[in-house]
Amino acid sequence: MADQSRSRDRVTIYDIAALAGVHPSTVSRALSTTPTRRVTAETVAKIKSIADELGYEANPWAQSLRTQRTQTIGLVLPHFEDFTMGEVFEAATRTAFDSGYQSITVSTGDDPGRSSQAIRALVRRRVDGLVIASAHLEDPALDELRDQGIPYMLLNRVHRDDPCIRADDELGAYLAASHLIERGHRRVALLSGVAGASSAELRRDGFTRAFREATISLDPQLIQWSGLGIGSGIELGRRLLQLDEPPTAIFAANDFVALGVMSAARDLGRRVPDDLALVGYNDTEAGAALPIPLSSVSVPLRRMGEEAIRAVIGQIEGEAPRSDVYEPRLVVRASSDSWRA
Amino acid sequence: MADQSRSRDRVTIYDIAALAGVHPSTVSRALSTTPTRRVTAETVAKIKSIADELGYEANPWAQSLRTQRTQTIGLVLPHFEDFTMGEVFEAATRTAFDSGYQSITVSTGDDPGRSSQAIRALVRRRVDGLVIASAHLEDPALDELRDQGIPYMLLNRVHRDDPCIRADDELGAYLAASHLIERGHRRVALLSGVAGASSAELRRDGFTRAFREATISLDPQLIQWSGLGIGSGIELGRRLLQLDEPPTAIFAANDFVALGVMSAARDLGRRVPDDLALVGYNDTEAGAALPIPLSSVSVPLRRMGEEAIRAVIGQIEGEAPRSDVYEPRLVVRASSDSWRA
Repeated sequence: MADQSRSRDRVTIYDIAALAGVHPSTVSRALSTTPTRRVTAETVAKIKSIADELGYEANPWAQSLRTQRTQTIGLVLPHFEDFTMGEVFEAATRTAFDSGYQSITVSTGDDPGRSSQAIRALVRRRVDGLVIASAHLEDPALDELRDQGIPYMLLNRVHRDDPCIRADDELGAYLAASHLIERGHRRVALLSGVAGASSAELRRDGFTRAFREATISLDPQLIQWSGLGIGSGIELGRRLLQLDEPPTAIFAANDFVALGVMSAARDLGRRVPDDLALVGYNDTEAGAALPIPLSSVSVPLRRMGEEAIRAVIGQIEGEAPRSDVYEPRLVVRASSDSWRA
Repeated sequence: MADQSRSRDRVTIYDIAALAGVHPSTVSRALSTTPTRRVTAETVAKIKSIADELGYEANPWAQSLRTQRTQTIGLVLPHFEDFTMGEVFEAATRTAFDSGYQSITVSTGDDPGRSSQAIRALVRRRVDGLVIASAHLEDPALDELRDQGIPYMLLNRVHRDDPCIRADDELGAYLAASHLIERGHRRVALLSGVAGASSAELRRDGFTRAFREATISLDPQLIQWSGLGIGSGIELGRRLLQLDEPPTAIFAANDFVALGVMSAARDLGRRVPDDLALVGYNDTEAGAALPIPLSSVSVPLRRMGEEAIRAVIGQIEGEAPRSDVYEPRLVVRASSDSWRA
């Protein structure tokens, strides 16, 4: 198998040159991605038609060594298992494809060490630019990218003043907390997301601001870092609901963490929303489909994924880096739509 | 930006040669991935330590042009949005990484045309091998891979006798249908998955066999192709439940399609499991966490993802291609755990 793969029969520019009756270097210039005036449009057309007929495929590496472009964007995401990001990366991949770029997706397990490693590995593979959704507040690999002048865009999470497409996490958390306060809840727990991610820090800020403005004191043991999967919701939900004074509402890091909390509540015989109000984040199709439809903070994630790709392609093609912050809104459904006396 | 990226300052073998006091070709040989006897172990160690200190990174393309290996595996999946496959690809990516391979993930939108395009694009990028989870029964790109001798493994879906890691879909569907028949259901609908995917065809076979063995006739309008997302479950669930004679049970293509059906039932005021029994596929964490826990056919998907990677690496390194079929089992939960008189 390995031997065969080394000796693939492949159409070369010499084959095309022979059929077109031109010098191989003319074929090379005609098929180059860089425009040239040294070959007439007629000759280019003729050579391209022969190349198509023979099924000629340029060797992208040889080409890359020449032009230093790979037409590839590296996507770095925290988890393939983060269902929320699946949608975003589907949209991002399609946008890249439509713009003539391949995308290489790498997952980091949301581990700062592996994230740096993944970024460096993509740079070694000479991606033209990166979209990074796994940024941590301290990430030496991001400083390296900046120092090397490699185009990149952050998605969802900020790092210093690096160019970033994100939604306003402070405001999102503020909206959710204010809603729960307004429905009469006083003991509300926050599952904020991953420690070291800016989104989690900002949600803590917004959540705290809502309680401060309502002059309600917060119990620090109700403020928890969390993962981004169902398992984390089950574990933390169980722990919170078994406190001597359990919360009457929980605001989760995303809809899947909220589903995990819902499952813990079910196992402990607590009814949603009467015993426990729940609000998720990202307003997924899954949350809305649940037997008890889930309230959630809605964020235009797909559009943000597309924008991040467009912005990094812009940088690759010489535009200045740009940042954008999208405004979230709260969608209230049955899981938090009840009043407490 | 673009200009900067073209002129990255990079440590070369000449820098290392100068510091080590050797000829550049000695550095090249010492740092080559192919073992050599022409440089002493001492010199190799010295050169490697200087290279490490300077942060030298080999140019993987120049190396690739020489060795024809990229240490890269292409993963082709139908959708980033197929939450079920997220777990599998997370496991596959990690296994590849641990074996010293990068993985490039591409999504095809489960479109046969785009799938062929994606496979050809990965081949052009000279991946050493591919794991393909999006195979359709007729897929010219797969024949091309075979003709070119490029190592590949199929995952989940078969194509002719190509090497494939999969679970027994015929048996999985047979188990689910037999369970529903045994609980007294006579009008059972099947959402089989994507037309043209072997898994969907095999589930139709297993489902039909269970009814034939029980000598119960099947209403063809209850047998439907489906997508793999929540939206497809909502749409088909709504249509089936509004039939004059609606089914009393639905067996869905995966847990997320089942969640969509659950949502349609909720909107139409049908209770699960009393008015409608539901069985999903792949036994996900999400299905088990639902307020009405979901029965599901369990398949060792993570292990299958890992095995597919190991098998394709085996091929790359000269082993014969191998295939494996895993046995599914049924996990009965509340969504189908009731009896019909």
